Amino acid sequence: MPQIDVCLSPKLIQEYGIKGKIVVVVDILRATSCMVTALANGAQSIIPVATVEECSAYKGDEKCLKAAERDGKKVEGFELGNSPYSYLDPYIDGSSIVITTTNGTLAIQLSTEADEILIGAFLNISALAQYLLTQEKDVLIVCAGWKNKMNLEDTIFAGALVQLIESKFSSTNDSTVAARVLHEIAKIDLFKFITGHSSHYKRLQSLHLDKDIKYCLQFDIYSIIPKMYGHQMLIMGSDKVTVS
Amino acid sequence: MPQIDVCLSPKLIQEYGIKGKIVVVVDILRATSCMVTALANGAQSIIPVATVEECSAYKGDEKCLKAAERDGKKVEGFELGNSPYSYLDPYIDGSSIVITTTNGTLAIQLSTEADEILIGAFLNISALAQYLLTQEKDVLIVCAGWKNKMNLEDTIFAGALVQLIESKFSSTNDSTVAARVLHEIAKIDLFKFITGHSSHYKRLQSLHLDKDIKYCLQFDIYSIIPKMYGHQMLIMGSDKVTVS
Repeated sequence: MPQIDVCLSPKLIQEYGIKGKIVVVVDILRATSCMVTALANGAQSIIPVATVEECSAYKGDEKCLKAAERDGKKVEGFELGNSPYSYLDPYIDGSSIVITTTNGTLAIQLSTEADEILIGAFLNISALAQYLLTQEKDVLIVCAGWKNKMNLEDTIFAGALVQLIESKFSSTNDSTVAARVLHEIAKIDLFKFITGHSSHYKRLQSLHLDKDIKYCLQFDIYSIIPKMYGHQMLIMGSDKVTVS
Repeated sequence: MPQIDVCLSPKLIQEYGIKGKIVVVVDILRATSCMVTALANGAQSIIPVATVEECSAYKGDEKCLKAAERDGKKVEGFELGNSPYSYLDPYIDGSSIVITTTNGTLAIQLSTEADEILIGAFLNISALAQYLLTQEKDVLIVCAGWKNKMNLEDTIFAGALVQLIESKFSSTNDSTVAARVLHEIAKIDLFKFITGHSSHYKRLQSLHLDKDIKYCLQFDIYSIIPKMYGHQMLIMGSDKVTVS
């Protein structure tokens, strides 16, 4: 039986090992929710980069848009920030988006040794689960967290994903149990739990982003799975991502 | 209001910062449970060292005993391992114990920059809580975990300790919430939760250590607080550690 594990911080990735595994990177508020949204709404590709400088210096063609977020805010001088609503705009249709965020893009870059890097969010959780169930490969869910600390929303997502696939996976790590228990408690009212407890929500609250957060906590709006191919992220082949 | 935080893995200590803080190191199964037991039962001091080699090479006097555990087992050639029952033996009275364990002693060594390093276990949790409530200093609970991954029993202890003192502390990190939630669920039947879910319990199970685990999950058997003074651990001044 393949193994499912939950890595609570990018800093702990090497403790789990990722070679030969499928890594699911998650940054619910809001990087991976934005990535799913962008690709589902016409963006052609996404290029995650680690630093604002790298994002700024990237030489793209005329269809290239640049997105940078730090500490919850759009970095001055960039076209896009980290609000999923920006990625619903028809303006992004056909574009390639170079993006850097506080936590999410780092987690992707630290996962490059994995067999496959997929992008997870509540927005595409069932499509993701269905794909993982067909692969018979070890899976590591990498929570982007907040500046190398664990966060609630990514861990709760991990618990939700584990619940959807655990019948076909085994786990020997306690973080998987912790994520499952947290999800069991939080799922009663996800928005209330996150807004009542999440430190990142409290950080975003002053930026009046309740609408963004409600958006990011929706299940199965999309049935695509973003996947890294080299340095760029594309929609994974549509034959494999239909949701029942 | 001082800050209380929970660090889920020794590998994440530097993300929290420990200068000026009181660090509570916890390794419920079984290093810190053994340390509390040993000092409460007549051991004069404990010297935690990181490696088996260091433990072996340590030059102590005739009252010096040596304890080494790796992967749940006593290392061959050492007088003591990591079973709390060994430390209840009158044989340890007046001794100084040089000890190395898989996770607990490393967590102590990584905390040396803290203002104070205290040792926590369910066995002395109320004494510890009462002391922390009087100090008005930031507290970081460092879970020893299992080989740099989080574990359930240390996190649940952290949640129990947070609950005892949270009225006088604030927290801005999600790991504190996660520990509190896990403790709320686990406390209904702590032994059942740990034995049902903990990966470390499953590792110990083959070693037939149920008796040890039951011992380690007892609350408030002792009212002492072990504290690091330089490289050695002693009982903290008895005027500060009475339990109401």
